[in-house]
Amino acid sequence: MVQQPAENCCPAETKPDRKPAQCQHTGQPASERHAAGSGTIRQCPRTTLSLATAGRIAAARKNSHRSTPQYPLRSLDFRGRSRRLPVSETPVMPDETLLLLGIDGGGTTTRALLAAAANPAQILATGFSGPSNQRAVGPLLAMQNLDAAVNAAFEQSGLPRCTVAAACLGLAGADRDSDRGVVLQWASEARLADHVRVVNDAVPLLSAGTGTGFGVALIAGTGSLAWGCNASGDSTRAGGWGWLMGDEGSAWAIGSAVLKAVVCAADGRGPLTALAPAVCEQLQISTASDLVARIYSAEIPRALIAELAPLAFTLAGAEDAVASSIISNAGRDLAVMARTVADRLKLPQQLPLAAAGAVLTQQPALLQAVVQHLSHDQRYCPVVTVVHNAAEGALRLAAELHQQNS
Amino acid sequence: MVQQPAENCCPAETKPDRKPAQCQHTGQPASERHAAGSGTIRQCPRTTLSLATAGRIAAARKNSHRSTPQYPLRSLDFRGRSRRLPVSETPVMPDETLLLLGIDGGGTTTRALLAAAANPAQILATGFSGPSNQRAVGPLLAMQNLDAAVNAAFEQSGLPRCTVAAACLGLAGADRDSDRGVVLQWASEARLADHVRVVNDAVPLLSAGTGTGFGVALIAGTGSLAWGCNASGDSTRAGGWGWLMGDEGSAWAIGSAVLKAVVCAADGRGPLTALAPAVCEQLQISTASDLVARIYSAEIPRALIAELAPLAFTLAGAEDAVASSIISNAGRDLAVMARTVADRLKLPQQLPLAAAGAVLTQQPALLQAVVQHLSHDQRYCPVVTVVHNAAEGALRLAAELHQQNS
Repeated sequence: MVQQPAENCCPAETKPDRKPAQCQHTGQPASERHAAGSGTIRQCPRTTLSLATAGRIAAARKNSHRSTPQYPLRSLDFRGRSRRLPVSETPVMPDETLLLLGIDGGGTTTRALLAAAANPAQILATGFSGPSNQRAVGPLLAMQNLDAAVNAAFEQSGLPRCTVAAACLGLAGADRDSDRGVVLQWASEARLADHVRVVNDAVPLLSAGTGTGFGVALIAGTGSLAWGCNASGDSTRAGGWGWLMGDEGSAWAIGSAVLKAVVCAADGRGPLTALAPAVCEQLQISTASDLVARIYSAEIPRALIAELAPLAFTLAGAEDAVASSIISNAGRDLAVMARTVADRLKLPQQLPLAAAGAVLTQQPALLQAVVQHLSHDQRYCPVVTVVHNAAEGALRLAAELHQQNS
Repeated sequence: MVQQPAENCCPAETKPDRKPAQCQHTGQPASERHAAGSGTIRQCPRTTLSLATAGRIAAARKNSHRSTPQYPLRSLDFRGRSRRLPVSETPVMPDETLLLLGIDGGGTTTRALLAAAANPAQILATGFSGPSNQRAVGPLLAMQNLDAAVNAAFEQSGLPRCTVAAACLGLAGADRDSDRGVVLQWASEARLADHVRVVNDAVPLLSAGTGTGFGVALIAGTGSLAWGCNASGDSTRAGGWGWLMGDEGSAWAIGSAVLKAVVCAADGRGPLTALAPAVCEQLQISTASDLVARIYSAEIPRALIAELAPLAFTLAGAEDAVASSIISNAGRDLAVMARTVADRLKLPQQLPLAAAGAVLTQQPALLQAVVQHLSHDQRYCPVVTVVHNAAEGALRLAAELHQQNS
């Protein structure tokens, strides 16, 4: 069952500021609502695409002078074979039109934002491509997709592909030095930027969601992860172990719980639930006994199972007790991750929490469950910002990197 | 934590018979011990292989007169392609040397027992082959392995392959008419037996373990399943949904719980446990942070994870609280399956329980946990028989089938 929030989780002296928040990038007012009895949830609107300054910069097109590197660009793939890394033409822009790149890459898509260094809050163009999580698709395809996203951003801007002043890449699956080394090698060979920073995907999210860069970034989409940083620069994480070892609160975990509830109900081991007919309808089977054939004959059963997650939200809304319990448990699991990180970093009671990932940002019931579980004992009163575009945080970090080096 | 058993779970008037039990096949005394405070666990020894009557039967070898069928033996594989079914030479034995076949086929191995119809308790030969679970390996390979196990049994007996009087095949993955149809078609084309019965693998197990064929068969090995039958012939099941939807209490589920405990401890989300260094040692990694690379780069991570299950038993024995909790939870999950089946079939308090599967038969702590959870509220006082060779039950059912038709 969904746990009811404490009536007043925040002592008066520590209640979060109720003034309308502004997006730290655009200055536009952010929509704000108070999660049922606990904490604050702000929606950070997407920065609208503008090509206002593109004309000035486009004039630099004719000045592009650096050609594609001629030295052999090779790397090792997972099997140790030498492979040419994907590198596009990389002319260099003149100083007066310095550019920045902010990239957010995950297990499903990669998004690259292009902005002028003189005005990093003004996004010139956005490029999309496929997944760039090396752990999910291997380093070769991941680098190809990074390159494709950068190309797409330049193409949309009307500018020629060139070396930018600074780039920050926030990438899922880039937690180890060896992972980041692959990206840095590609960035070097592609002459991506004068200064490059590669971080895991939670770092730009925290930057986009909290402004200060301190607090907890909580992601629940294909996978799940909590990552935090405090004012001293200490950082830590919880979760992010992938679907075979956790990913609690993710679409996979919720879909998996839905399936288990349905088979337990079919056996008589668990309570009856409206999830059973809903799952049968979605999977186009007659009864739960057809599940074995349906699930194990699927080419990607993991995706099939994750796609069942929305049923839990729909039926929790219709007060199905089993579905409500699944959502509450998912919220509790995510709250435990966030709390673990916050405890270890000694973060304040008014906990800045940047929420991202398709499930957490598109299903308000899950975010409310997280907030309720986080604040139920008044240890934390989370101030939540929903981040739809973590690449904006990467762009912000690219701007900081440029400032540090200019 | 492991739950302590009730001191006296069985009222005096319903305590199970304490007389030394006999194996219903061999008449040999079965070893017996009383599970900690609750229920009775008997070990049914394997019927020893004897070729005492083989000489008489072998004399019939020269009388074999039916040749290999000449009509085309074809079937459809999973992709709808016409494939020749595996069929070996099938001469027929003269009536005075009628034989029986009992076959137990699972996701790992297939075992075929050969006996004379006149003395089905005396096993003439045993043949082994690979998996014959159609759901796991597809119908073509499953039928090839059934044929290979039968061939191996005949080869060991010194007899020529011939049509036997009756055969019973207890096969995992043979729950649906379409599954059984594939087996019956192969049996017909292979002229396996005059009378053939195909059942799921729990049916012979119950026959081997309870003598009466009534009670609950509980399997925990690669997967897990409870199947029961009452005196009225009603039957039902719980579990058996495979690793993506349950398999609670199986090696997979226990290994998976071990991994999750280790990553939670590494995050600070769960208590410290000696499972962490033990898992690192078994997987030959330095720290838990190497788990992602190790698990997701494994060709068959499912097998790698299932192989971690023994660590939980070892460390539960060394009083690691996390490991003990994992074993207790696995026992509880299996007990819930067995109880669900027993409740639905209105089985008696002195519940005949046939236990099988590598984990349940080789890890006494798990079986004790099952018994404790089943008997904690005195609703059931399970009388457990550990069955090491379910093919003996299939042979017994083959003998019954022969008697019904002779």
